[in-house]
Amino acid sequence: MRVKKLNMNFSVEASDIKSRARAGTISTDHGQIDTPIFMPVGTAATVKAVHIRELEDDIKAQIILGNTYHLYLRPGLELIEQAGGLHGFNGWRRPILTDSGGYQVYSLADNRKITEEGVTFQSHIDGSRHIFTPENVVDIQRTIGADIVMAFDECTPYPCDYDYAKRSMEMTHRWLKRCAERMNQTEPRYGYAQSLFPIIQGSVYPDLRKKSAETIAGYDLDGNAIGGLSVGEPSEMMYEMTEAVCELLPMHKPRYLMGVGTPENILECIALGIDMFDCVMPTRNARNGMLFTPEGIINIKNEKWKNDLSLIDANLENYASNFYTKAYLRHLIISKEILGAQIASLHNLAFYLWLVKEARKRIISGNFITWKNDMINKVSKRI
Amino acid sequence: MRVKKLNMNFSVEASDIKSRARAGTISTDHGQIDTPIFMPVGTAATVKAVHIRELEDDIKAQIILGNTYHLYLRPGLELIEQAGGLHGFNGWRRPILTDSGGYQVYSLADNRKITEEGVTFQSHIDGSRHIFTPENVVDIQRTIGADIVMAFDECTPYPCDYDYAKRSMEMTHRWLKRCAERMNQTEPRYGYAQSLFPIIQGSVYPDLRKKSAETIAGYDLDGNAIGGLSVGEPSEMMYEMTEAVCELLPMHKPRYLMGVGTPENILECIALGIDMFDCVMPTRNARNGMLFTPEGIINIKNEKWKNDLSLIDANLENYASNFYTKAYLRHLIISKEILGAQIASLHNLAFYLWLVKEARKRIISGNFITWKNDMINKVSKRI
Repeated sequence: MRVKKLNMNFSVEASDIKSRARAGTISTDHGQIDTPIFMPVGTAATVKAVHIRELEDDIKAQIILGNTYHLYLRPGLELIEQAGGLHGFNGWRRPILTDSGGYQVYSLADNRKITEEGVTFQSHIDGSRHIFTPENVVDIQRTIGADIVMAFDECTPYPCDYDYAKRSMEMTHRWLKRCAERMNQTEPRYGYAQSLFPIIQGSVYPDLRKKSAETIAGYDLDGNAIGGLSVGEPSEMMYEMTEAVCELLPMHKPRYLMGVGTPENILECIALGIDMFDCVMPTRNARNGMLFTPEGIINIKNEKWKNDLSLIDANLENYASNFYTKAYLRHLIISKEILGAQIASLHNLAFYLWLVKEARKRIISGNFITWKNDMINKVSKRI
Repeated sequence: MRVKKLNMNFSVEASDIKSRARAGTISTDHGQIDTPIFMPVGTAATVKAVHIRELEDDIKAQIILGNTYHLYLRPGLELIEQAGGLHGFNGWRRPILTDSGGYQVYSLADNRKITEEGVTFQSHIDGSRHIFTPENVVDIQRTIGADIVMAFDECTPYPCDYDYAKRSMEMTHRWLKRCAERMNQTEPRYGYAQSLFPIIQGSVYPDLRKKSAETIAGYDLDGNAIGGLSVGEPSEMMYEMTEAVCELLPMHKPRYLMGVGTPENILECIALGIDMFDCVMPTRNARNGMLFTPEGIINIKNEKWKNDLSLIDANLENYASNFYTKAYLRHLIISKEILGAQIASLHNLAFYLWLVKEARKRIISGNFITWKNDMINKVSKRI
């Protein structure tokens, strides 16, 4: 079954010879996305501690995420619809991808119950009861106004026994069929295209992952996603699963590895053929004083930065990194000043966007693997 | 006794005929300040939730405050000195006024004990013991790098009996003498002028206030301040005390009313001859969702703003007020998102700066009182 043709387009501009890495461009009605790309997470209609103009001008984000579970509960669909979708609500003008709400239902909601029909749960905010089904999460994401709508899936925990992983994956596939049908039966809400991405599951079992990759690829949708990784398994296992499915996923569709990860994870998975990433790590860790830099990871709370009056990162082209000093940021984080969260979030997101942009350059110029191996040594160490 | 001539200069450009309001300019080595002016409070080397470039470009702040008590305890003088003063530490390039630390010692510190020598207290952060004296608070403020150093005073609470108020005021006067002597014996720290402002005390007793005004005016310092108001007394009493002392303070020195206040308070006190104000209200109340606007006070948490997709304030020239909508800000504040505090703080500070700028325009154009009375009706009402 095919979903009707939408306007999203993906072209691969360069492929690395020594790896599966590729540089491409996704065209959407809200503009172009250069891949590989990192997508800042804007959970509740805001990338935490970051203004919209900072996302555009300092971080140079090309696409952001919204969380369906959060947005559905608060502010709710009525207001988002009235605002003309999430773009109208928060003022972000470039593409938005929404998750399906599944992951948050499993991790945040109370009294959840998974059946073939969908998931019933209680809001973590007010205890109210709700149900998410493959059909209504498509409708909800259409109403939120996502450029990229994610299929409803069950994200299995780690570890997960084989039988549960298999049954869950099969249900996720049946849910995908229902999502795709719903997409076909409904129209984009606000005059721009809305694409559905299916999600591969199968825990850490290569045969399940391959089966899932083949199944979802068969839908020939605008892109393909890998879910259920970065949930506690060792990185090597994440890479193994990613490699196994990337070999099976079509070359001419963008591949999105959900919820990943550290700078090292991102570089390794770009080499395996991933084009899109998202993760709360740069913003969440920023609020706790962890800074990612091209030279390594800084815990700004450490005594060693106390008198360091050098800029946070003089070479990173954004206001926060080359205006404020490490000692000043340390003071703010230790004093629990809001500005500390603002500066560290801006810096980390700018670093993540810089990282994928640099990767793209190296893929195009043909020296990606050398650069990647060198960068991984740097970015993973604590300094 | 006179403190040696510093470079600060104040010129009155226009005086209102129907009130004591005046429009002036303070020249400092860090640039000009148009009066009347509102000074955003930057307690711990940061105006909470606001970037330095936002203070400059959006709020168009001309001078900010630093709190000596906070800065002395954290990050401490050693680091501030190493950074070349507070300007070097946080990157703010325009003038800074520091309070003397007295007010915070009385309101925040533990086990404080006031003697003729000074005040001993325990840090609210780590319980460490410290002493503030008229001499060392001058030294501390010089090290912080204040353009305007405030004299050490005792800020009496409200209510305060006459005898205590009198004795306290007399001690504040003796402390002023010691501050002025210390200023004379020491040099500016970083190559720019540092001016001392004395503080009038005397609680709500007109005879004490007048006595205090005459005493401090006798020092012929670069400006004069009124302390011990806005501490719980009725507004009418604040106005009465302000009026009583403004009649006695020299015309050709800027007058600073400390810790004031609501937009209404500010407008009334401009009419009484005040040139400088500071208050945490615009930022603190912003974080709780209270917005000041030219049309009145908004509690953005109220249900009535839930679906209001109009801009926060389309006419106020700053990013936050005319990019984000009321409904979006309400969602952020209710969801306790950091961006909510950022937007509301930017908006409120921009409003306060707009208010004093408008007042200045009206003083110059000669219709201040009519405008002021009209504005007070608007800005004080809850909408």
